[in-house]
Amino acid sequence: MGDKSELEFVSWLRTKISSKAWVPVGPGDDAAVVQWPNDKPCLATSDMLLEGSCFILAEAGAERIGRKAMNVNLSDIAAMAGIPRAALVSLALPKNGGKQLAQQLFKGLNQAAELFDTAIVGGDTNAWNGPLAISITLLGFPGPKGPILRSNAKPGDAILVTGQLGGSILGKHLDFTPRIAEAQLLSQLTNLNSMIDLSDGLALDLHRLCTESKCGATLFADRIPISEAALQMKDDKTPLQHALGDGEDFELLFTLPALEAQQLLKDQPLKGLRITQIGEITKDGLFMEEKGRKFLLEALGYIHQFD
Amino acid sequence: MGDKSELEFVSWLRTKISSKAWVPVGPGDDAAVVQWPNDKPCLATSDMLLEGSCFILAEAGAERIGRKAMNVNLSDIAAMAGIPRAALVSLALPKNGGKQLAQQLFKGLNQAAELFDTAIVGGDTNAWNGPLAISITLLGFPGPKGPILRSNAKPGDAILVTGQLGGSILGKHLDFTPRIAEAQLLSQLTNLNSMIDLSDGLALDLHRLCTESKCGATLFADRIPISEAALQMKDDKTPLQHALGDGEDFELLFTLPALEAQQLLKDQPLKGLRITQIGEITKDGLFMEEKGRKFLLEALGYIHQFD
Repeated sequence: MGDKSELEFVSWLRTKISSKAWVPVGPGDDAAVVQWPNDKPCLATSDMLLEGSCFILAEAGAERIGRKAMNVNLSDIAAMAGIPRAALVSLALPKNGGKQLAQQLFKGLNQAAELFDTAIVGGDTNAWNGPLAISITLLGFPGPKGPILRSNAKPGDAILVTGQLGGSILGKHLDFTPRIAEAQLLSQLTNLNSMIDLSDGLALDLHRLCTESKCGATLFADRIPISEAALQMKDDKTPLQHALGDGEDFELLFTLPALEAQQLLKDQPLKGLRITQIGEITKDGLFMEEKGRKFLLEALGYIHQFD
Repeated sequence: MGDKSELEFVSWLRTKISSKAWVPVGPGDDAAVVQWPNDKPCLATSDMLLEGSCFILAEAGAERIGRKAMNVNLSDIAAMAGIPRAALVSLALPKNGGKQLAQQLFKGLNQAAELFDTAIVGGDTNAWNGPLAISITLLGFPGPKGPILRSNAKPGDAILVTGQLGGSILGKHLDFTPRIAEAQLLSQLTNLNSMIDLSDGLALDLHRLCTESKCGATLFADRIPISEAALQMKDDKTPLQHALGDGEDFELLFTLPALEAQQLLKDQPLKGLRITQIGEITKDGLFMEEKGRKFLLEALGYIHQFD
């Protein structure tokens, strides 16, 4: 009460944020004003990161956590083949050390946003006797072909994935590049039917895509690109199980007509990032083909649990 | 891990949310898709409510907290004379009892949103070993005259306020009506120069408006509308001090040319809600006139504190 720390932080923030032509009113009013391209819908996504549950602050450091919090939201806009435009950042800060923490978080948040020409336009800064919580809403708009949904996969589509999967916990979960540019290129070059970003594990995210599209899928076990990190995991799971079940790969999973997929796989247009076909969309049922045999594919992956 | 509570909650949520013509894709994809009126910018605001700091769950009940969380965001869109369109709701739920709590919260959230034809289009649901946190982002667009900012008050403007102030803690802070309809009517009927909603106390919010507008203000002590609740507060502050310093009135504070203000005060066009002139905008300095004497006006009010 009477302390000016919140006002001071917002003032500090306003000196650090670069102005963007499409943001006539940024932080400091009751709402931000963001100009919107005519005929474009608004893509809106929110992701919240929680200390202790989603990250360990002491391990990762605040700047990295800030970067990750922005990047997980950017990854959701990428999954729609969208172009990010504006972010709102809300923080629940611990009362002790909150100011320094907020400034370090912001450094990472702003760095990630700037890389994709995204303006931080608002948010809310609070202090409490609880752990750190970061909630971000990201706004964007689709490219010329409109948003690519989860719900439009077609039986016969090839299922493709960018990069390599599994073992993200060894480092990639904190330091990844949201596939904004790649998704836009893919959307331009091909007729994508559906897309999702891999945040909760390949098997679970594929399950979601198939549920929304009312279809099935068969994965080919020997074609799933397994990351070096998945091979290095020392536990009771196989590298393939890691590639199927580990969360936070933040790669793109997408489907498109089989013929177009063949050309895309030959062309490999994403610089430094391999595209791999890992399966095909079917009418129903989720299966894995391994050495000529077919198994039911469980929806392994990470889901928040509350009773 | 493997528990389906988050998926189940999102499925449940999708059955409870009414569909809106302007939301082709609601909850369930990587991002929501919200159609946007051509030539309209996007107004975007975020407010976070935290258990223990912003509310006591056991006292207020989850449904009421849900309603309040939506209404504080609606109040920010009202302050821009905006029309709300879509909300994203992120929850950090305690692991025990989270499911029931989420459903009760949602009931209040949805009730408040529906009253203002606002679609809940997305968000994020998490569970953790921390208290309840609710973070909402609200998107809207301005009416025909564009957004009304804090930064455009002019010396000579009359300062007006809707309703009565102070003592909100006795009940109104939980059960208030965001002034969406009133703000739109005021914006249609008059040439508002500036507006802000009273969330952190009249003196502090006026201070903010003057800072953004690079101007000063003089308040007339005997004209400030003091609420019944402010009179009932039994502590060491006077009712006037409560009206000046108490947060969460969620009324509109606005400025407009003095001549127009006279007409508006005579007409009193807001049904059941009195408009009162409480002061005037000056070139600089914040003062209170009381019994012919002038005092410096302190920026009393509620600010989050973190060191």
